[in-house]
Amino acid sequence: MSTTKKKSLYIAEADEPEMLDDELLVQVKATALNRADLLQKRGLYPPPQGESSIMGLEMSGVVEKAGANTSGWRRGDRVFALLPGGGYAERVSIPAGMAMRIPDHFSFEEAAAVPEVFLTAYLNLFELGGLKPDHTVLIHAGASGVGTAAIQLVREAGATSIVTAGSEEKRNTCISLGASSAIDYKAGPFAPDVLAATGGKGVDIILDFLGSSYWEQNMEALAIDGRLIVLATMGGNIVKDVDLGFMLRRRLQLIGSSLRSRSRADKIRLTAGFAAFALPLFEQGRLKPVIDSVWEWEKVNEAHQHMEKNRNTGKIILRVEQ
Amino acid sequence: MSTTKKKSLYIAEADEPEMLDDELLVQVKATALNRADLLQKRGLYPPPQGESSIMGLEMSGVVEKAGANTSGWRRGDRVFALLPGGGYAERVSIPAGMAMRIPDHFSFEEAAAVPEVFLTAYLNLFELGGLKPDHTVLIHAGASGVGTAAIQLVREAGATSIVTAGSEEKRNTCISLGASSAIDYKAGPFAPDVLAATGGKGVDIILDFLGSSYWEQNMEALAIDGRLIVLATMGGNIVKDVDLGFMLRRRLQLIGSSLRSRSRADKIRLTAGFAAFALPLFEQGRLKPVIDSVWEWEKVNEAHQHMEKNRNTGKIILRVEQ
Repeated sequence: MSTTKKKSLYIAEADEPEMLDDELLVQVKATALNRADLLQKRGLYPPPQGESSIMGLEMSGVVEKAGANTSGWRRGDRVFALLPGGGYAERVSIPAGMAMRIPDHFSFEEAAAVPEVFLTAYLNLFELGGLKPDHTVLIHAGASGVGTAAIQLVREAGATSIVTAGSEEKRNTCISLGASSAIDYKAGPFAPDVLAATGGKGVDIILDFLGSSYWEQNMEALAIDGRLIVLATMGGNIVKDVDLGFMLRRRLQLIGSSLRSRSRADKIRLTAGFAAFALPLFEQGRLKPVIDSVWEWEKVNEAHQHMEKNRNTGKIILRVEQ
Repeated sequence: MSTTKKKSLYIAEADEPEMLDDELLVQVKATALNRADLLQKRGLYPPPQGESSIMGLEMSGVVEKAGANTSGWRRGDRVFALLPGGGYAERVSIPAGMAMRIPDHFSFEEAAAVPEVFLTAYLNLFELGGLKPDHTVLIHAGASGVGTAAIQLVREAGATSIVTAGSEEKRNTCISLGASSAIDYKAGPFAPDVLAATGGKGVDIILDFLGSSYWEQNMEALAIDGRLIVLATMGGNIVKDVDLGFMLRRRLQLIGSSLRSRSRADKIRLTAGFAAFALPLFEQGRLKPVIDSVWEWEKVNEAHQHMEKNRNTGKIILRVEQ
């Protein structure tokens, strides 16, 4: 393995991963960037206790060895999965229950673009959001990885999505994926547009990555019984003046959400539900990973800079040559 | 009907209620006080649009006439139900789907003590709280009407409750109903006691009536994935400094809850679920309405004052003599 050092990231020798009887040892072919990597790089988002500190939240690859207590998997199977960490490595061991079979027509790069964003969108829309066909969902950062996955899942659920995005190109991408309208958040407050698009009713679910900077407008944009699901706080953690009386009268819910911090058991449960729902739709070509760009893994720093500048539409993939 | 006037409340002639084909006309025998009545009296909590402005959120009585599109009900049946308003009247018409049959061994006074507090506790614990047998619930105002109902429902679900209450007598009542511990909120912050009682883990659900004055301690007392359900804001509406980052990392939920403002269809659905779960338990004597006192309905002002002074343990009932 080559050893290079650029800024704070480096690729280095690591011990072969330990492997349990209910795990698969996987040779990694591709992995993908996530905002959490940027935070972890700056020391702001440590990995869950006991998990690898090697970055990477998802991967695709080939099974090298199946543990004694697994069934249905064998050497050579193409798999993709969420990871607690360890994706930017040549080999990882993963619980067999977190592995999903890669659709035949998918490349490893396409497969690596799926787990984190689609499982995040699935968790938040269906499990936490209680998405129903008559719902309208406001998806902030519609052209992001989670955004593009969420638009497609909302469409497949027969529901309606409205997105915010900062460029015409991004808004066009969102509309082509199935969003019913796309709002330019740079043009002014988004809440009036959301209310206009819903006949004054507001939306049933909001997927938010901004937090405090969007709080007041999000409250304004929510319908009665609406749920604001906060997945990140890129616009600040602290909200001044939260009006509980308003939330009570309108029966609003605020849901703090994180996929990464969940237990392995919970991720296995979630993966099973998602795979049953989504794998057939990937096979049929109804759901599609949205890929912004593919980089050789030695270019990880450049890839991170691309993400830091919000230049991506969809996922940024790292290819692992072995 | 006698016409008296005391303070801002009065009992006066009213038109006979209109009755739809899917409704029951009920001769009211008893009704009960709710905090919402106190707010409505001060003009702070108007009834839902289109609903009666006569106060009263629940009642027990006898069916006088069953509408053409109802089935299973006939003149003389003893019923109790949630009301959108109109309980402090001699006759009310209610959707047949909101009527429940009074257990044989119940008096009308006992029956009138059930609907609002038990349906509120049921809604918030089961539907919004997702109560499971391994959960611990913190119930503020444990000796209140909703509190005493919630303690019993938590017990019947096989889960654990911790309560706060302001007097030794109230705390003893809570323990006798099944609470595992009772905290004196007047003795200092409750969060350390909650953490001590849960081995540092915190509680899975909080039923809160205070709002802003309890916010920080409630956040401290919640376990990971915990839900804070706010049913009233007697300690203030506005919270300064809500930390969304903290809520995200711990995956906390804030749920604004109101039973009264829900649609008739929703109340009918809720009543059906509650009746299936709870009526057999009332029949068997496992669930019991907790009655503080019974007043003649002409004494409604005195009864309200009793509630305003937080002197009650359980429900305050008004008997309607006809």
